[in-house]
Amino acid sequence: MMDIKVDGFTCKSSSEVDETDFFFSGLAAPASTANTMGTAATPADVRQIPGLNTLSISMSRHDFAPGGVNPPHVHPRATEILFVVDGELLVGFLTTSNKLFTKIISKGEIFVFPRGLLHFHFNNGSSAAAAIAAFDSQLPGTQPAAAALFEAAPAVPENVLAAAFRMESELVEKIKAGLAPNN
Amino acid sequence: MMDIKVDGFTCKSSSEVDETDFFFSGLAAPASTANTMGTAATPADVRQIPGLNTLSISMSRHDFAPGGVNPPHVHPRATEILFVVDGELLVGFLTTSNKLFTKIISKGEIFVFPRGLLHFHFNNGSSAAAAIAAFDSQLPGTQPAAAALFEAAPAVPENVLAAAFRMESELVEKIKAGLAPNN
Amino acid sequence: MMDIKVDGFTCKSSSEVDETDFFFSGLAAPASTANTMGTAATPADVRQIPGLNTLSISMSRHDFAPGGVNPPHVHPRATEILFVVDGELLVGFLTTSNKLFTKIISKGEIFVFPRGLLHFHFNNGSSAAAAIAAFDSQLPGTQPAAAALFEAAPAVPENVLAAAFRMESELVEKIKAGLAPNN
Amino acid sequence: MMDIKVDGFTCKSSSEVDETDFFFSGLAAPASTANTMGTAATPADVRQIPGLNTLSISMSRHDFAPGGVNPPHVHPRATEILFVVDGELLVGFLTTSNKLFTKIISKGEIFVFPRGLLHFHFNNGSSAAAAIAAFDSQLPGTQPAAAALFEAAPAVPENVLAAAFRMESELVEKIKAGLAPNN
Amino acid sequence: MMDIKVDGFTCKSSSEVDETDFFFSGLAAPASTANTMGTAATPADVRQIPGLNTLSISMSRHDFAPGGVNPPHVHPRATEILFVVDGELLVGFLTTSNKLFTKIISKGEIFVFPRGLLHFHFNNGSSAAAAIAAFDSQLPGTQPAAAALFEAAPAVPENVLAAAFRMESELVEKIKAGLAPNN
Amino acid sequence: MMDIKVDGFTCKSSSEVDETDFFFSGLAAPASTANTMGTAATPADVRQIPGLNTLSISMSRHDFAPGGVNPPHVHPRATEILFVVDGELLVGFLTTSNKLFTKIISKGEIFVFPRGLLHFHFNNGSSAAAAIAAFDSQLPGTQPAAAALFEAAPAVPENVLAAAFRMESELVEKIKAGLAPNN
Repeated sequence: MMDIKVDGFTCKSSSEVDETDFFFSGLAAPASTANTMGTAATPADVRQIPGLNTLSISMSRHDFAPGGVNPPHVHPRATEILFVVDGELLVGFLTTSNKLFTKIISKGEIFVFPRGLLHFHFNNGSSAAAAIAAFDSQLPGTQPAAAALFEAAPAVPENVLAAAFRMESELVEKIKAGLAPNN
Repeated sequence: MMDIKVDGFTCKSSSEVDETDFFFSGLAAPASTANTMGTAATPADVRQIPGLNTLSISMSRHDFAPGGVNPPHVHPRATEILFVVDGELLVGFLTTSNKLFTKIISKGEIFVFPRGLLHFHFNNGSSAAAAIAAFDSQLPGTQPAAAALFEAAPAVPENVLAAAFRMESELVEKIKAGLAPNN
Repeated sequence: MMDIKVDGFTCKSSSEVDETDFFFSGLAAPASTANTMGTAATPADVRQIPGLNTLSISMSRHDFAPGGVNPPHVHPRATEILFVVDGELLVGFLTTSNKLFTKIISKGEIFVFPRGLLHFHFNNGSSAAAAIAAFDSQLPGTQPAAAALFEAAPAVPENVLAAAFRMESELVEKIKAGLAPNN
Repeated sequence: MMDIKVDGFTCKSSSEVDETDFFFSGLAAPASTANTMGTAATPADVRQIPGLNTLSISMSRHDFAPGGVNPPHVHPRATEILFVVDGELLVGFLTTSNKLFTKIISKGEIFVFPRGLLHFHFNNGSSAAAAIAAFDSQLPGTQPAAAALFEAAPAVPENVLAAAFRMESELVEKIKAGLAPNN
Repeated sequence: MMDIKVDGFTCKSSSEVDETDFFFSGLAAPASTANTMGTAATPADVRQIPGLNTLSISMSRHDFAPGGVNPPHVHPRATEILFVVDGELLVGFLTTSNKLFTKIISKGEIFVFPRGLLHFHFNNGSSAAAAIAAFDSQLPGTQPAAAALFEAAPAVPENVLAAAFRMESELVEKIKAGLAPNN
Repeated sequence: MMDIKVDGFTCKSSSEVDETDFFFSGLAAPASTANTMGTAATPADVRQIPGLNTLSISMSRHDFAPGGVNPPHVHPRATEILFVVDGELLVGFLTTSNKLFTKIISKGEIFVFPRGLLHFHFNNGSSAAAAIAAFDSQLPGTQPAAAALFEAAPAVPENVLAAAFRMESELVEKIKAGLAPNN
């Protein structure tokens, strides 16, 4: 597991800073979407761009195979704006009043996902899609709900999941099995 | 649906403010836990306490029947500290590295749930439990993951849920049915 | 004197963090109130709970013998909400317009003391009382007015105190003598 | 009592804004120090300068007769820097460790009083003095400790004061009498 | 002149909010660059997207004809990240130590321009270019240096410009003439 | 070039802190204005006053010979209030709508320059002038527009300047020559 520090980045000496500290080329090419979700996320935050330290902004690139989904997740420390670079996406977020705000957005269109709310991006089309997200944090963090609930280590206690979803333990096990990496 | 305004509260004229604007008695008595989750949450935020406007703090009370669970949820705008008033709770939060930090806490003990991360409280004991939560926001918001994903209106598209959980639509329907209010 | 750093706490390496960094049991038991004020304050801030680092929240426990007083003080960096765990307290704060907002609060009731204003808690009853305070700072700080003015080292110049209170030096000395530890 | 709103100032329409909204001449002349404290404070905050709205800064002017004192007080929402315009001042602040940091500062010198801590300015010299204070808040607020404790309306309960200062009620009454306006 | 309010946007009633409040299609198509600078800026901030109110983020689109320049400017309230959608740009910012950090960035690459510093984007190539900027403010503001200095109304006093640039008034006039709209 | 760190200052151990950490005498005397601009700026920020670390405020002194100008500049991280200590100044700032707000201010008067906007101070009188500026940042930074654009190292590309000012390269060279230190 990599070593994540929310507020622990030290400033470089200014004599060692140059233009490469403010530059990143890693969002230029699509990442492979040959995985079970059919999607890939490439971060461009303070870990990749040292010049972002103390500044409240970062980006990431998202690639989607046809049918690929960036499953429901929260960014604990940021609001997101998503800009579609290619293709078309069905996106949405849930409010604390349990209401879904959803829209199909196409190339060049943008959508806002307010701070700390569950949201998703889904490529419902037949061709690949790509999008750029911007965040108001140098390290927004990402927590996918299904993985956090059903794949954590150690595991979330089964009776908590059973009670939360009001389902039998056997069904909890079935969901876990479906999400398991080798599935 | 009630009208929620994150930043839209107007200051009273100072001549109209008195001590009752800084006081709340609504956390003194347990709320009924006779519901499917066996739990109740009573907020004490800027909606109940006008004097909290522009101040970054609020509270809530949580009551738990034996076996009651405050299911995995996030507060989009706040960190939480939980203080156990009565009984014993199994609590935990998930990190963005998908790691569970969990602990059993008893009367008088406290636990911290960092900003925007999924967490839960579970009364694994045989007697009722109660706890007081404090938040660093005048209106922290609460989003329960299972309800947001499976009970939203309009519904989260079934193919998004099926893809996110890598399960058949039929299983999605089964989970929704289990969570439905009249179940 | 202990070494207090408002903003100087370093983040642990994430591999060294575990659930105990988010937990504190030190508020569970009452502290001794066998002192001249008849009160005790037990902090639960970033010094006791490393996981609070960079998060804007903390707690403390306050125990009161009958007649015990948490004398007028300010928290320089935080608003406070007080939740009564046991007994009854007379509490109040002073506004910058020199107005007192005061109330008697009982078990389970809460009261808000806005950021940086003088306030007090007084156990006017005949049995012990206890309360939990929450703050919107990882290290709120506490400055009791009487002790700061009359017991500081080095001492606040006597003519400053005499002028501020418009009283004779002899009366200043009398107040200091009354507050002296061996009194 | 004037109507104070911490966060309740409305932005003017931009077409109505002109240079006078960013200007204030009220600090140019000394205010009268013919009062019991021998001092005067002239604010220059968002109430006098509408253009400060949403900006985190303000000023004030302080005039001192010989022997005049700006008695121990806190600014609940700001740090202060004081610049001496004329004369010499004995200034100081108290830390939360009950330590006094004090210094005599002369014309052109500056001293910092950290956020929310009790501090004072005293003209110990034989000629008038004047100083300009800057604050990191559009409305820092001021709370003088002696006045807040002994002159509030309604009054701070006498047993609270007696307990806080560990003195007889009769002495509390004596202090109140000394501070009374007609004294 | 349009009515700009930095912090004066009122929250809609939540019952009136729908998905269109979080969506914007105005960045999808290139804007005309048939102007003297050969460039166009299309904002996507709280004025276009009501759902951004109270959230610290926004975007804008920048189109460049060959040779087009987004001339040196500052965003008074935000850091910027620029993502190249098409073509290639020569970009740079100046530090407070008067040092230029500059780089040629191509499609898919990003560059950071820290808060409040002069920076520029220049299409040095032979084909059109386009880029998306993200800001950590709901309304970052833009101030182009040449236009602010030489085209303001009322005009910056000529002796100020002459002294600042250490040049004759006649040269100041020549620069103004060159920048005039009908030139 | 000195080593500037926006957020990189370490807190001293509290046992090593004394009153000199909150004091600065360097603004008491005028600095020499025998230079091409006829002006001098003396900072009093966290680099000179260690006690300002983590506090959002600082000051600076500005001296002006007759005709001296503090040329158009921005503070990337702060709003400024200017207090005239001696003499008279013509001051102004430019809005993002390209409007000049300007005023002549005399001894004891103040003017506000909102965060991140170009502004200037000009001594249009026949005697020396002096002023004290306060900022809502421990390290506001200063970027003079003419120097940044025409004297940076490495130089801003000539075609960028030519395009921004819509002037011939030869004129760009002429401006650079005028600003060169040995001119």
